[in-house]
Amino acid sequence: MEAVSLSEAIEQRLNSLTKPPGSLGELERLAARYCLIACQVQPPLPRKGMYLFCADHGVVAEGVSAYPSAVTAQMVANFERGGAAVNVLCRQFQIEPVIVDCGVGQPTANFALEPAMTLEKARELLKKGRMLAHSAKQRFDLVGLGEMGIGNTTSAAALLSALTGADAALTVGAGTGLDDAGMQHKAAVVRRALALHPDRDPLAVLAALGGFEIGTMTGFILAAAEIGLPVVVDGFITSAASLVALRLNPKALDTAFFSHRSAEKGHARMLEALGATPALDLGMRLGEGSGAALMINLIETSLRVYLEMATFAEAGVAEKLN
Amino acid sequence: MEAVSLSEAIEQRLNSLTKPPGSLGELERLAARYCLIACQVQPPLPRKGMYLFCADHGVVAEGVSAYPSAVTAQMVANFERGGAAVNVLCRQFQIEPVIVDCGVGQPTANFALEPAMTLEKARELLKKGRMLAHSAKQRFDLVGLGEMGIGNTTSAAALLSALTGADAALTVGAGTGLDDAGMQHKAAVVRRALALHPDRDPLAVLAALGGFEIGTMTGFILAAAEIGLPVVVDGFITSAASLVALRLNPKALDTAFFSHRSAEKGHARMLEALGATPALDLGMRLGEGSGAALMINLIETSLRVYLEMATFAEAGVAEKLN
Repeated sequence: MEAVSLSEAIEQRLNSLTKPPGSLGELERLAARYCLIACQVQPPLPRKGMYLFCADHGVVAEGVSAYPSAVTAQMVANFERGGAAVNVLCRQFQIEPVIVDCGVGQPTANFALEPAMTLEKARELLKKGRMLAHSAKQRFDLVGLGEMGIGNTTSAAALLSALTGADAALTVGAGTGLDDAGMQHKAAVVRRALALHPDRDPLAVLAALGGFEIGTMTGFILAAAEIGLPVVVDGFITSAASLVALRLNPKALDTAFFSHRSAEKGHARMLEALGATPALDLGMRLGEGSGAALMINLIETSLRVYLEMATFAEAGVAEKLN
Repeated sequence: MEAVSLSEAIEQRLNSLTKPPGSLGELERLAARYCLIACQVQPPLPRKGMYLFCADHGVVAEGVSAYPSAVTAQMVANFERGGAAVNVLCRQFQIEPVIVDCGVGQPTANFALEPAMTLEKARELLKKGRMLAHSAKQRFDLVGLGEMGIGNTTSAAALLSALTGADAALTVGAGTGLDDAGMQHKAAVVRRALALHPDRDPLAVLAALGGFEIGTMTGFILAAAEIGLPVVVDGFITSAASLVALRLNPKALDTAFFSHRSAEKGHARMLEALGATPALDLGMRLGEGSGAALMINLIETSLRVYLEMATFAEAGVAEKLN
């Protein structure tokens, strides 16, 4: 018998199923990619987790958010009680939520005035994120990345601008609901911060403009790629962490699935910088891992179809004519 | 207390939930539309069905399909044993499949040579479809429309051309997997049929170019709109039935949800003719209700989020700043 590579074996199984080859589109690609990462032709259905990285942001003092900082802690309490959108989605899709307090009520410094954190603190966050990924690998086979942090679209926009050179007008969006004047003010704050922190080394950028949750996610993503843990990236904020990770290591996204196009203005540009084409486009911009939860469900669906469908031989269905 | 309309009450509930207004995008629109059709501010979760309309097509004699006609019956047997993609999806999403034999092994006439069926037969199909919708309304609150019928993309393309005036080159696609030469031959067959059957009255078009499953679905859709049963349209074939229904009654799609953009070539034009913008775009082109099953899951998800999320008041979360 000829030696067959893993990807060939996966392709053979896909084409043996009772459907025209390729006719399940993205579902076939998702299943194949999941199996490749899992290093198995027929892996078991995944144990699913959703990590919710939560932290506060000093830049909120500049009036960049439509909600007060207190909402971060209030929403974390809402996560704990199961009342947030991501909780409903996790219950429906049997995903276990894991809340990670990265600095709720203990904000970063205001990066419009000084670096958000020291380089040492940024390194600590990466390390913490890495450790979390290693522990996640013990419990789960597929992990969504979500976040909560009033002010964090400002940080994500600043990171995107710093790492791609795009002006703040192109990266700043409405976040939780700013009007045009609010967005212009937010862009001016970001522009000021970019001038104040000119170092474009990725770690320096993270320290100057990042958030504690973003740095922790960055470490998580870096380790996940190394240990072969599939991670599901949510929207604008988690994509910013992915971009920092990618600039720190070109292989950082080898196990990352991108969920959806967020309605947050800068996300299209962010996805372009990441070379990512998410499967879903539902006009969502909530964060919390809400898009990642939908995507975890889609990946699991793709895998169930791939594992459970009958083959042409099993079903006695004629194959394609020549 | 002020009188509040149903749509206002739904909007009030959506905006009372712990998320920035509108931030769940399509999920908010789907939940609101479902509630409006159900005529309730907080309807129960839907009982879900998937109707699979199956039939054979005489036009297959022209060599327009990549698979032999026998595959229709073989796939129906596969549906019955639970081995098809739509079965896996129905099991995952707890949707009950209902197989409707509209003429498996008893094909329409070859519409390249004569009308696919008589006007009387077309009227019978509409009546049968209507009766099925009435019985579906007793058992289900949300019904997906799927189909199986070797040759039915040829019929759907012919219907689209006849009802919109678009040349066959724009409406004919690869179906289950034709190559370029096969598609050109298929387009020539459709062009010949369009010339042979010049009457553009919708019922005459259905009789001349339709399939038994397409006519039955058309009747189902017409009745569903009248009795307030939400139906979920799948891909190219079910969209063709929707287009016939729309031409028979401008209100025919009042309870229809469109699932996804199919990769089948003519579907974009079909959706345009329908004025429909589906939520999903996953490069799928299987039919069987596979896209509709994903959409039923998305609608249920939207409803769960809408029904189960905590409000700002319940969760003690501060609302938006002025």
